[in-house]
Order: sequence, then C-alpha cells, then structure tokens
Amino acid sequence: MATLIVGLLVFPKVQQLDLTGPYEVFASIPGAELRLIWKDLEPIVSATGLVLAPDTEMAGCPQLDVLCVPGGVGVNALMEDAVVLDFLRRQSEGARFVTSVCTGALVLAAAGLLDGKRATTHWASHDFLARLGAVPEGARVVTDGRFISGGGVTAGIDMALTLAAELIGRPQAEAIQLNLEYAPAPPFAAGHPDTATPEVVAAVRAMSSASRQERERIVQRLEAARG
Amino acid sequence: MATLIVGLLVFPKVQQLDLTGPYEVFASIPGAELRLIWKDLEPIVSATGLVLAPDTEMAGCPQLDVLCVPGGVGVNALMEDAVVLDFLRRQSEGARFVTSVCTGALVLAAAGLLDGKRATTHWASHDFLARLGAVPEGARVVTDGRFISGGGVTAGIDMALTLAAELIGRPQAEAIQLNLEYAPAPPFAAGHPDTATPEVVAAVRAMSSASRQERERIVQRLEAARG
Repeated sequence: MATLIVGLLVFPKVQQLDLTGPYEVFASIPGAELRLIWKDLEPIVSATGLVLAPDTEMAGCPQLDVLCVPGGVGVNALMEDAVVLDFLRRQSEGARFVTSVCTGALVLAAAGLLDGKRATTHWASHDFLARLGAVPEGARVVTDGRFISGGGVTAGIDMALTLAAELIGRPQAEAIQLNLEYAPAPPFAAGHPDTATPEVVAAVRAMSSASRQERERIVQRLEAARG
Repeated sequence: MATLIVGLLVFPKVQQLDLTGPYEVFASIPGAELRLIWKDLEPIVSATGLVLAPDTEMAGCPQLDVLCVPGGVGVNALMEDAVVLDFLRRQSEGARFVTSVCTGALVLAAAGLLDGKRATTHWASHDFLARLGAVPEGARVVTDGRFISGGGVTAGIDMALTLAAELIGRPQAEAIQLNLEYAPAPPFAAGHPDTATPEVVAAVRAMSSASRQERERIVQRLEAARG
C-alpha cells in the first residue's frame, strides 16, 4: 500500500485536541504515516498542559501529502514567524491537501495561502479571516479545492473525516467514524454562539480577551504589510 | 480556588483520543490539576502511534478527585494486571468520581468496581460488561452515582462535559463546550452500528477481530476467577 504522509504542525500552546482529534482519524487511514512537525524535537507543552513530542524537524521534513495546521493560543506567535510561514508555503506547493483546524487557519492565511479562498476557523476569531485575505464561510468544515478548514477545536474530527472520504472513499471513512463511535451527543446545546446563552458567550469572550487583543494587534500589522 | 486533581490512566496502546478528548474538557475546569498516570514515567506509545508522557507514577500518586480510565487495544493487558487493578481499587475508594471512556470500562469492571453498576463502553465490546458484573446500558454516557462511563472513543468528550457540569455547574460546563466549539456535525451517519451500513459494521468488526478474540479469552478467565 502506498504511504500517505500526513504532517501535523505542533507548537508551544497548541490546543492539543485540535491536533489529537484529526490525528486519530488520519492514523486510521491504511498506509498513513503521521508526522508531528516543529522546528526542533524538544517536547512541546500544549495550551492546556498536555506534552506532545515532535518527531520531525521542519528543516528535514519530506514533502507531505497532507498538511494540517491546528490552532490554539500559540498561533499568535506563529502568524509572524518567518520560519513557520516559509515552511507552510513550501509544503503547500507540493501537498495534495492543505488543512487547518480552529485558528490554524489564521496561520495559513498569514502565510498568504488562503488568499481568495473560502475558509472557516474558531467562531471567536472568524472575523480575522477576511482581513487576512480569505473568504470567510460560517460552516463547520469548508472545502475549497485542495484546501479544507475546520471550525473550532472539535471541528477537526469532522474535517478529518471529510478529508478521509476524499482520500480513501466514503465506506472506509465511515468505518473509521464507526470505530471511533463518532455519533456525538453533547449534553448541552452550547457548542456554538448561535445556540449558547448570551451569558455563556460573554463568559467565553471574557476568558479569551487577552489573547484576542494580542491577535488583533498582529492582524493589524499583517494588514499593513499586505498593503 | 481549591484544586481538583484529575488523574487519567495512560498505558501502552491506549486509544489516545479516549484520553485527549476528556483531557481538554477537564483541563478547562478552573483549578483543575491533571495527571497522566502510569507505572513509570517512560514515554507511552498509543494505539495509533502518538506518544504521551506520563507525569505521575502509580506508586506516588496522590488521592485523585476524579479518576478516568481510557480504552484502546492496550486494555487487554490491563484487565489482568494486578498492579493496575489494585491502583484503581485503592484510588476508587477516595475519589469523588470514577470514570471511563470506551473500553476503559472493562478495566474498571475487571477490578470489580462496576459490580451491579450501570455502565457503557465501546459498542463492539458492550457484551463483555455483563460478564464482568456490570449492568450494561446502551447509552453514550451512563451515570450511576459517582461512576460515569462513556461509550466508544469520542464519547469521552460527552462524558467529560457531563461530569464538568456536576463539578462546576452547567453554565461553566457550557462555556467549556462553547470554547471547544463542540457543535459536532459528522459528515456521515456512520458513528453507531444502528446507523452505519451492514458492510461498514462488518468491516470494523473484521478489523478488530484479533483483539476481540484475545479479549474474549481474558474475559473467560476473569469469569472463571469470579466463580
């Protein structure tokens, strides 16, 4: 069976479920070889503390078939990191699919890879997409040619299953879904600002306001650079 | 804020999403301190290859407030591992909540902790529960007093949100759900054997038949020991 190389970017303060959700789907694809990619191989502390171990350095990374950029508070630093952005641009040229989960889309956009492309991201950062050249779409998974983006965090599972069907056909993708017993039944209807109470939406916005303010300044600088 | 110590068992061939899904929910609880627990602190290779780093040895583990046992192919070895079963029994005595995801329930049952208790597990191992003394219930999340079990893999997110509401109240649990944008939209309806096609169910059963056969032999031995 031909190998499919799937590379997931891992970085300090990544939201680990952005990565580990799609990881479990991609790793279930027969012949898939998964890589956790960062600048070096030092252990990475995710946004919520889980430690992840990169296994592939950017510098020596082979051409990926699937590139996946997860999100998290740590994307703020990545959006102006020339080494990361160059890596993404270079890999994107030869990759069959370029994907993102959550605010990973902002990093792809900062690299100029989503210019004119339809994309989605975490609801609380959705307004940044257009300012970085993308065409925002309020869906959980957005496919524009070989670019596939997922909404916030848990949308990575939906994104990865969508891509799995492209790669290995729908029956095999459905088998992965069944094996992961992905028939979700959230105990509450609070997973999206359209259905959460205004108090809950306000609480989440308050919780992330510091990161949001920093991100606003970064986007302003990137807008200025885009001219 | 009082600390809530949440301990997740990590072990060779754990299904990492069983662990990383609830991890992201539990880690979002204000004041929560998360522990990844195993016999030693050597890196653990999960069932699909992701490497996880235990941070707490069983021998020196403080009393947990929440104990969580994820599943995966690796549970087979755990079900007859006296060190693991003793650890679970000991922690269970003082824990406020004892939880499982997927086939983690079989380990709790093997330790005798689910005797006469309602519980759920991965659909493909559901029939083992009764043979190990539990009262099987075909729900995605089952609460029986301080015992909460989730179904297969992704059900761990639903389980953890259910428990979060118990621990910190529904509005804060809803804020966690919203922050994780957990408004799932699976691309296919194949997440449960009731909705998947017979071909897809057969494919998944075939895929896991070796592990299933080994598990059958283990359960027979445990039944014999229960008398």
